[in-house]
Amino acid sequence: MAESEDLSNSSSNSSSREDMHFFEGVEKLLEIWFEPNPANKNADLRKIPRPMWDALLKTVRCEIISFTRNDQIDAYVLSESSMFVSKRRWILKTCGTTTPLQCFEPLLRLASEIAGYTEIEDLFYSRKNYKRPELQVSPHRGFDEEVAFLDSFFEDGRAYSLGAINRDCWHLYTLSRGGGGSKILKRNNHLHQLMEQHHSEQQHEAQLIEAAMQPDPDQTIEVLMTDLDPNVMAIFTKDVCTTAKEATQKSGIHRLLPGMVIDDYLFDPCGYSMNGISKNGCYMTIHITPEREFSYVSFESNVASSDYGELIKRVIRTFQPGKFIVTVFANKTSIAANANREIEHLGTIDQWKRRDIQYSRFASYDLTYAQYCKYPS
Amino acid sequence: MAESEDLSNSSSNSSSREDMHFFEGVEKLLEIWFEPNPANKNADLRKIPRPMWDALLKTVRCEIISFTRNDQIDAYVLSESSMFVSKRRWILKTCGTTTPLQCFEPLLRLASEIAGYTEIEDLFYSRKNYKRPELQVSPHRGFDEEVAFLDSFFEDGRAYSLGAINRDCWHLYTLSRGGGGSKILKRNNHLHQLMEQHHSEQQHEAQLIEAAMQPDPDQTIEVLMTDLDPNVMAIFTKDVCTTAKEATQKSGIHRLLPGMVIDDYLFDPCGYSMNGISKNGCYMTIHITPEREFSYVSFESNVASSDYGELIKRVIRTFQPGKFIVTVFANKTSIAANANREIEHLGTIDQWKRRDIQYSRFASYDLTYAQYCKYPS
Repeated sequence: MAESEDLSNSSSNSSSREDMHFFEGVEKLLEIWFEPNPANKNADLRKIPRPMWDALLKTVRCEIISFTRNDQIDAYVLSESSMFVSKRRWILKTCGTTTPLQCFEPLLRLASEIAGYTEIEDLFYSRKNYKRPELQVSPHRGFDEEVAFLDSFFEDGRAYSLGAINRDCWHLYTLSRGGGGSKILKRNNHLHQLMEQHHSEQQHEAQLIEAAMQPDPDQTIEVLMTDLDPNVMAIFTKDVCTTAKEATQKSGIHRLLPGMVIDDYLFDPCGYSMNGISKNGCYMTIHITPEREFSYVSFESNVASSDYGELIKRVIRTFQPGKFIVTVFANKTSIAANANREIEHLGTIDQWKRRDIQYSRFASYDLTYAQYCKYPS
Repeated sequence: MAESEDLSNSSSNSSSREDMHFFEGVEKLLEIWFEPNPANKNADLRKIPRPMWDALLKTVRCEIISFTRNDQIDAYVLSESSMFVSKRRWILKTCGTTTPLQCFEPLLRLASEIAGYTEIEDLFYSRKNYKRPELQVSPHRGFDEEVAFLDSFFEDGRAYSLGAINRDCWHLYTLSRGGGGSKILKRNNHLHQLMEQHHSEQQHEAQLIEAAMQPDPDQTIEVLMTDLDPNVMAIFTKDVCTTAKEATQKSGIHRLLPGMVIDDYLFDPCGYSMNGISKNGCYMTIHITPEREFSYVSFESNVASSDYGELIKRVIRTFQPGKFIVTVFANKTSIAANANREIEHLGTIDQWKRRDIQYSRFASYDLTYAQYCKYPS
């Protein structure tokens, strides 16, 4: 995406390989949930007007190139990947040498002054290891630097590295405040007091509170692919397709999650981005860096499923990666809550063999990480 | 352990806090399994004579201070922690500013020239995050440096960080070659060929080979404790106890895994180490740094159990840590193979509450990592 722009960046930053065209497809993904504001029921991130997003994205070093929306979600295609804005959830996914953590202060100011939110409930910052970390810009020159930057904002953030850190891996920084921030914790104390009193009437009240405390089901799946089949990647070049729609159809992307309204973009001379949204608030997003030397494709969606195996198969059969990482986040009320057990059973998918699987439980979400290689490679 | 020796070390290394007494209790743990040598049935690491171990341990910057043995295992108490030598398994656990990775080349030479082993089957290098990493000596000044050092020996090593890397965490470098190295892989090919031929006689042979291929059950549990109760820690000082045996009895260490032959050592003025061994080849080892400002206790054993919860409880009730990490390795044939499910259910143990749990599957072992804090802290 925006290949020509980043070509100049990478060659000016790289002294040893300055003649080589390179683009870092690996995205930085930031997802923030703001805490519902009891004093302002009309709080909504979509109140933030377009010129303010434009200004905010300048600090990230990217810009909006396409837009689509429905009642649940505003979806932006960016010069480097995507942004999704819902009532209280904000997702920014940016590749290349963008600097999403630089927008932190303007974002919190806009959330407070325009949208009506003052507290962060959950935050997830994640990315795969970069192919060429030496080309990144501060504070993104390494996960240590990213963690130190985020720790300067939050006292209770936790940083994890999943997978083999001397090979393919995936980094995560998370603030996970028990599924509802400090407010929920206070309610929990009330609940425990009620439980301890052993009065049936109060126990009933406690059960009602517990039911009300259950978070809305939520889940996110990502499939991050490298070393992709050059024949598939050729689809995402202007040599082979003249329009984004043609590339979407020819590759079969439109069949991955049928029923999504698709906003797709084919870059010149190559590269592809798409956002898909559905009326129930689900989204999907795909970003493709097709060049053989650094091919990369990411798939992400919050679609709920108790069988992600089928979706993973559709995705990897579509793109034919040499290697890929799967991550699944799911909270307790999601139908994907057993994704870890499901993926544990997926030791082999077609000719792809699992090399790593890790399962982590966080305060409000469980995470499954798995890495696969094509075999024989 | 060896507090007085390391006091001088730490004060000479530290410029900013040079008046402060400090000892790094956190150990570096190296466990190596050599591949059985079909050409030399008498291969045995215990053939390596004591003067050669003395010389090897000089490169690690520690020395042997006590020794005990039985038919299965030689157990050494070191000036900084412990060494265990069995027929084909070697364990070195050293604290302070020791440099166990520096003994790699001499060890491989001794294993080949004296013991009769030429191939490594499994290797595990692990440690908790240091309290004061800036005092460590190369190649131990950071996990990145340790990984780079090990990668210079091995093409197929994999490095992992478990837990929150900006808080308490635990690092692991592992070579895990499918439960039996290249030899087993070759046998596997033979097995698959037999399976494909569909002849009942050969299938029977295949089943026999498969049974023979099952690795011996193996498991290791570690409990790494910090911020310990000063009243318990006082036991491990010469002020309170005059002998190691007195400290072992008074603290209740002798009741943790009854039936072990114990070799214990009380340092002057404080600090404690013990090795326990049993006739079936099981070992346990405990190392205690009692000073309040940097108190640390490690417990490790390869005792098999399908209920590590009971053992963990005995350990933490004995030492009363403010925080602790549990790690359990178990292979497929171990009765601890379901340790991950068991520890998943241990969300709370007495007043200790779990903050992190991660589960990883490797080629020949599964690993469970969990971290707990005393609550309210």
